[in-house]
Amino acid sequence: MARFIKDRIAAKGQMPGSLVLIGNQKMENPVIRLMEFDAENLVEKDLGSIEEAAVCLNSEGTSWINIYGIHDLEMIRRMGEIFELHPLLLEDIMNTDQLPKYDDGDDYDAFILKMLKYDEEARLISAEQFSLIVGHRYVLTLQEQVGDVFNPVRERIRNTKKRARLIDPDYLSYALLDTIVDNYIIIVETLGRNIEALEERLFSRPDKTLVEEIYKYKTELSYLRKSVRPVKELMSHFLRSDHTMFDEKYLHYLRDLNELVIQASDAIELYNGMISDHLNIYHTNVSNRTNEVMKVLTIFASIFIPLTFIAGIYGMNFEFIPELKFKYGYLGFWIVVIIVGGGLLIYFRRKKWL
Amino acid sequence: MARFIKDRIAAKGQMPGSLVLIGNQKMENPVIRLMEFDAENLVEKDLGSIEEAAVCLNSEGTSWINIYGIHDLEMIRRMGEIFELHPLLLEDIMNTDQLPKYDDGDDYDAFILKMLKYDEEARLISAEQFSLIVGHRYVLTLQEQVGDVFNPVRERIRNTKKRARLIDPDYLSYALLDTIVDNYIIIVETLGRNIEALEERLFSRPDKTLVEEIYKYKTELSYLRKSVRPVKELMSHFLRSDHTMFDEKYLHYLRDLNELVIQASDAIELYNGMISDHLNIYHTNVSNRTNEVMKVLTIFASIFIPLTFIAGIYGMNFEFIPELKFKYGYLGFWIVVIIVGGGLLIYFRRKKWL
Amino acid sequence: MARFIKDRIAAKGQMPGSLVLIGNQKMENPVIRLMEFDAENLVEKDLGSIEEAAVCLNSEGTSWINIYGIHDLEMIRRMGEIFELHPLLLEDIMNTDQLPKYDDGDDYDAFILKMLKYDEEARLISAEQFSLIVGHRYVLTLQEQVGDVFNPVRERIRNTKKRARLIDPDYLSYALLDTIVDNYIIIVETLGRNIEALEERLFSRPDKTLVEEIYKYKTELSYLRKSVRPVKELMSHFLRSDHTMFDEKYLHYLRDLNELVIQASDAIELYNGMISDHLNIYHTNVSNRTNEVMKVLTIFASIFIPLTFIAGIYGMNFEFIPELKFKYGYLGFWIVVIIVGGGLLIYFRRKKWL
Amino acid sequence: MARFIKDRIAAKGQMPGSLVLIGNQKMENPVIRLMEFDAENLVEKDLGSIEEAAVCLNSEGTSWINIYGIHDLEMIRRMGEIFELHPLLLEDIMNTDQLPKYDDGDDYDAFILKMLKYDEEARLISAEQFSLIVGHRYVLTLQEQVGDVFNPVRERIRNTKKRARLIDPDYLSYALLDTIVDNYIIIVETLGRNIEALEERLFSRPDKTLVEEIYKYKTELSYLRKSVRPVKELMSHFLRSDHTMFDEKYLHYLRDLNELVIQASDAIELYNGMISDHLNIYHTNVSNRTNEVMKVLTIFASIFIPLTFIAGIYGMNFEFIPELKFKYGYLGFWIVVIIVGGGLLIYFRRKKWL
Amino acid sequence: MARFIKDRIAAKGQMPGSLVLIGNQKMENPVIRLMEFDAENLVEKDLGSIEEAAVCLNSEGTSWINIYGIHDLEMIRRMGEIFELHPLLLEDIMNTDQLPKYDDGDDYDAFILKMLKYDEEARLISAEQFSLIVGHRYVLTLQEQVGDVFNPVRERIRNTKKRARLIDPDYLSYALLDTIVDNYIIIVETLGRNIEALEERLFSRPDKTLVEEIYKYKTELSYLRKSVRPVKELMSHFLRSDHTMFDEKYLHYLRDLNELVIQASDAIELYNGMISDHLNIYHTNVSNRTNEVMKVLTIFASIFIPLTFIAGIYGMNFEFIPELKFKYGYLGFWIVVIIVGGGLLIYFRRKKWL
Repeated sequence: MARFIKDRIAAKGQMPGSLVLIGNQKMENPVIRLMEFDAENLVEKDLGSIEEAAVCLNSEGTSWINIYGIHDLEMIRRMGEIFELHPLLLEDIMNTDQLPKYDDGDDYDAFILKMLKYDEEARLISAEQFSLIVGHRYVLTLQEQVGDVFNPVRERIRNTKKRARLIDPDYLSYALLDTIVDNYIIIVETLGRNIEALEERLFSRPDKTLVEEIYKYKTELSYLRKSVRPVKELMSHFLRSDHTMFDEKYLHYLRDLNELVIQASDAIELYNGMISDHLNIYHTNVSNRTNEVMKVLTIFASIFIPLTFIAGIYGMNFEFIPELKFKYGYLGFWIVVIIVGGGLLIYFRRKKWL
Repeated sequence: MARFIKDRIAAKGQMPGSLVLIGNQKMENPVIRLMEFDAENLVEKDLGSIEEAAVCLNSEGTSWINIYGIHDLEMIRRMGEIFELHPLLLEDIMNTDQLPKYDDGDDYDAFILKMLKYDEEARLISAEQFSLIVGHRYVLTLQEQVGDVFNPVRERIRNTKKRARLIDPDYLSYALLDTIVDNYIIIVETLGRNIEALEERLFSRPDKTLVEEIYKYKTELSYLRKSVRPVKELMSHFLRSDHTMFDEKYLHYLRDLNELVIQASDAIELYNGMISDHLNIYHTNVSNRTNEVMKVLTIFASIFIPLTFIAGIYGMNFEFIPELKFKYGYLGFWIVVIIVGGGLLIYFRRKKWL
Repeated sequence: MARFIKDRIAAKGQMPGSLVLIGNQKMENPVIRLMEFDAENLVEKDLGSIEEAAVCLNSEGTSWINIYGIHDLEMIRRMGEIFELHPLLLEDIMNTDQLPKYDDGDDYDAFILKMLKYDEEARLISAEQFSLIVGHRYVLTLQEQVGDVFNPVRERIRNTKKRARLIDPDYLSYALLDTIVDNYIIIVETLGRNIEALEERLFSRPDKTLVEEIYKYKTELSYLRKSVRPVKELMSHFLRSDHTMFDEKYLHYLRDLNELVIQASDAIELYNGMISDHLNIYHTNVSNRTNEVMKVLTIFASIFIPLTFIAGIYGMNFEFIPELKFKYGYLGFWIVVIIVGGGLLIYFRRKKWL
Repeated sequence: MARFIKDRIAAKGQMPGSLVLIGNQKMENPVIRLMEFDAENLVEKDLGSIEEAAVCLNSEGTSWINIYGIHDLEMIRRMGEIFELHPLLLEDIMNTDQLPKYDDGDDYDAFILKMLKYDEEARLISAEQFSLIVGHRYVLTLQEQVGDVFNPVRERIRNTKKRARLIDPDYLSYALLDTIVDNYIIIVETLGRNIEALEERLFSRPDKTLVEEIYKYKTELSYLRKSVRPVKELMSHFLRSDHTMFDEKYLHYLRDLNELVIQASDAIELYNGMISDHLNIYHTNVSNRTNEVMKVLTIFASIFIPLTFIAGIYGMNFEFIPELKFKYGYLGFWIVVIIVGGGLLIYFRRKKWL
Repeated sequence: MARFIKDRIAAKGQMPGSLVLIGNQKMENPVIRLMEFDAENLVEKDLGSIEEAAVCLNSEGTSWINIYGIHDLEMIRRMGEIFELHPLLLEDIMNTDQLPKYDDGDDYDAFILKMLKYDEEARLISAEQFSLIVGHRYVLTLQEQVGDVFNPVRERIRNTKKRARLIDPDYLSYALLDTIVDNYIIIVETLGRNIEALEERLFSRPDKTLVEEIYKYKTELSYLRKSVRPVKELMSHFLRSDHTMFDEKYLHYLRDLNELVIQASDAIELYNGMISDHLNIYHTNVSNRTNEVMKVLTIFASIFIPLTFIAGIYGMNFEFIPELKFKYGYLGFWIVVIIVGGGLLIYFRRKKWL
């Protein structure tokens, strides 16, 4: 299965606009968690079915409904009915290959973007689709599986004192988006640190595995860019939107978030340029070392091959080789060897090969 | 014949605006298939001539007239008269090298784009021109030859229950376009999967055929891009158009289609970058291996060539070579061999060539 | 003389705005041909001087005045007076290095672009300046020398039946421009076919001349681009112009022409990318082959150099070499040779060099 | 720690919008210096706490409050209260990874940008966050540590005569920004001088360390670009802003400053292109030298290996080798050697390898 | 001193906006030349001081005041007072690193651009700052040193007949700017001709100095681009300006000048692409030649090394080597040599190395 674009075979033969999960199903049964709270109270529980969430629409407090698992068509459909979501939005939520996008519904704002994880051991980034729908009194989030980066936000909700601002669903949404974008930067920083660390090996120990690592990082940067870059457009689309339900006073925060995304994006490009430089430098270094190896060979061969020829001459068995009978023949041989060998040494030194 | 641009020799000396088939004729006689249907009835038949299609214009039901074969000038001309199409549109339909375009006629909307096929064996994408004209009660499609990707849509029409929305020609058009774009993504995904699979061979078994494959994929990606990229412009042109006959309520769907095209386009760029990286990495690896081969040669030659010279010395037939008469001369020779050979081994180890 | 930009030495020291021929004079005396026609009549003749063309301004019929040779300052000046052309337009007409441009005069529209010729043998594109001025009842064209691509248009004018639309000078202009742009596409196609044909040689017979051909095509594509790309801007300038004299009903045709130019331009970029890939692939293949050559050398040398050393040992003339006297000494030598040689063969096979 | 993007680990789990120092703390206790002056008087002193700065708000003279050290959350918070700064601005001030930005507050204009230092020895640029807030009668600047480039400005303030224009806080701000941007250009110039100096070594002494230097400069240029490029956007944002408090008459100066930034930016791109060329040239030169080394080896080996073979033949001990008994056998041997050797020499000369 | 950006050390510690010469002083004392003329009269003289130029402001005729040498602060300041120039304009005039710019003053238009000179021998372009200020009845030009390209204009002024249009200061300015831009094109053409000439050497005599030349041209093109490209922006800024004093009727000429700049700029990009191709081709050719050298070595070594081994065998002194005693042993040896040698020759021919 291609990693950079997902198979739509499942969607083939389906009517456009029908609900189909595009991508892999990552867990068995969906889990629905609810946090309902106001300044004083907090109810935290798992819901048996999405219908139980309907009450949140009319409750006084703020509800954060967090759904793990987006493969259950029936549940998604019913969720769509309860929260009056547009059918195409539901389709987008289920398409895990969906580009990050912002959608301004009648009574809600919807954001779809990627939640990233970096497995430092395998040096592999994995992406999970994250959908956030914010309505008048609720925030609805959907993830592909259990496990996320939102625990600090949850802790804050559980803490009566720190909860204050989070009671506004708009601010809660911002806090969640901010957590995701912060996580982008943390991943860029981790990759960046590793890439910068390659530099030293590039010059001191440039072995073969280095190319493989360079390639790895290049691929992961592409993957990262694929997830992060469209968030810039999402943001600018959102900030230009007239129909947003977002409270004016939080726009400033979102503009700040936008800057974070730009910063992540810039750093990705920067590291991408750097890793390309690494490959070029590596290649140049390989050529450099080949050159050095060649010099050693050439010096050895060019000195000893002629000498061996001379020795070969006097190893011949011709009956008449006058030199063989000279008293100082052998001495003469050595003198010739020293002159030829020394001459070649001087020649190579002049060429700066030694 | 060039694959990326088609010969216009046929058009040479013709008046501009005259009807000429640009490209190859792919079948003998055009085939015209009609599906006429409303909520209850479905008539499916082959028409003997394009004139029989004229009744569709005034029929109550929805008609999908599907023409295979676009080389019959006479038929195209008469079709133009019956459906009141602009002469330049007819010319575009017959020019199989036409860039994808959207045309808003007086009583119709016309889309020209490419239908792609990927022959996995030959690793070759082939493109066929697909023209779609949607009027008040009909959809007229033209293809170069029999055989297409629309069977799921046809099945749905044949199924009385699922037919509902397809009765609107606008929605039917959308369904057809969506099928084509979905097919783009499937092809990108297939290519992408193959390209990603090259990675493993790149590092473990980098043989010569790999370059050829890399080149192949690069060419196919160019071909794909040539067909897909202009669809983005087509879409934005269409979405900005004021004169479109399209029902407002379907624009949302077409905007979604637009996103699919962008996604395909982005993935093509991404894979294009990746395949270029592959070539670079391959080249670097070749240099790396040359370097290694050179080291082996240099080590062998640099050690044994001097030793052979020494052996050569004592193979000489000078009458007076004192060493030859030494009792331990031969032993001394071996000692020298071991010292020289061992010294060179240590030298090469120090250089980290061993 | 530089091919990509022309010497302005001739213009040095001249007042700006003075008429000077920039580029080479390509023929002796200018030739002026007139075709004057209406629905029934056609007069075709060579004019002795430009003054004779003055009558065309007031004639009932349509006149196509075709001037070959633009080096005669006096003639150009008088032409300017007769047709009331702006002095800077005259200067542009005589500057064969002029970028393609559109100029909307008071009573005329002027187009300056390049007419290309491809000499298949020398694999060289040559460009000739083509200027077209269209007024109320005349079309005035200027070329650097006799010989062009317009014969099909002339034939059509001579044919009373096919002449109909060409009576309108606007349509005649369009037909001429269309012929030129069609010719661009034919050249792109020819180059493209040749470039695509290189692919096979790239993998089967990559000899040295291939680099030279690759370079040739790259240069010709640059030359082509230099002539074609600015036509896109010319077109968009023209289509945005408010002062154009062009009949509204032909704008549709010119928009179509614009698409042709874009298509040619896209194909040039595509082939440019492809030829760059060819060079990269070629380079990689050369490295690949060097690698292979090296392997052969290394295998031969690494096996036989040590063996030669062994043979050298027993070719020494030490008085005391015990092995020489062993009964099975020679047999033992062969056993050692087979073990060492075989061992190295196995080693190289393990390294996959064999 | 990555140099190109900073770790946000510190911010993890914090509420967005809370004050956290991102980056390293560079000094122990913050130092607050005040220069309060009008045309006649100048008070210069270190403040014990930020509260003492509050009086500046209502003083008649101009105050420049310069704070070194931005890690003290409490101080930053109180400063925010005193000068009525937006909480997000405070957050930006403490985030040393903040992209350069301009912020138009209610009663102030704020600029955040980088102050650069170039350590010529380590060939390393270091960046420090510089924040400037200009209000009605004060200029507030924040730096990460003691030590800056503003001494010329301070000297001028101390000089009663030259002080004149600096009394206007707007002009003072401009002078500070101008000093920073001038410093950018000085660094670009230093790097540029070094890069241009590489050229000579590139052709005369291209040793291995050169690659390392090339890489160094490439990295530093990236670092420089990262700091300088966003200042262009800051400037254009500022110049387009409607809410700026800046006096109209200084806009001209700031437009001039903008040009300086563009110039620095252009020079960075130029040097970046040049350093890339250097790497390419270096690589080509390495290949060139390998080629030369190979030629020497090939000439030596190709001449002497066959000759050694010939000598080897007559060193064989076959009982019947007729040539050995020829009177002129040895002479003949030398004639063969000279013919073979000379022939090869001529061959190599013809190939232009000699 | 860096060539591509100039040291601002001189400006360090100076107040922004103070007059400082940035760049080298190129001559001792400034020279001021005046040409004052109307249709009938012409006064040409050297002025002792800038104050003498003040009368030009109220004279009836047209004055061209040409100042050579811009390092005299006092003179520049007084000039600013006399002609009422903005202080920042004066600063720009003295900053020889100033980007080309257009400035619309209250009573004047100012242009700052580069005057280029190409030293064909050293293959070096040098740039000199040229400032042109055009007021109601005067044209004021400033150059860094004596010597320029304006002699044709001066000659024309001296010629009573040809002087006519130059009496208008706007037209005179245009003539001067046109001369400078024409000179750009002449330099591009000279460089271009040289670059195109490299092509032949690239394939027939690719020696080492070629890389150096390629690099030279690449650097000069960068230098050229640095001076020419901003003139495009200068022009578009000027053409969009509302406050220009330029007579409407000359805008057409300046638009033409703009086209010349675009043409020069396009040619620079084109030659830049071509010189990069040259480097790539050169590198590929070097690899090609290395490959060939390797083949020669491999063929020689692979044939003679095994043969030498065989000869070595029969040069051994084992007491018992049966072959040595065979009657046809020596003949057999030659047969083996021919079989082995011939076999290898056939092998290499099959591999197409011969």
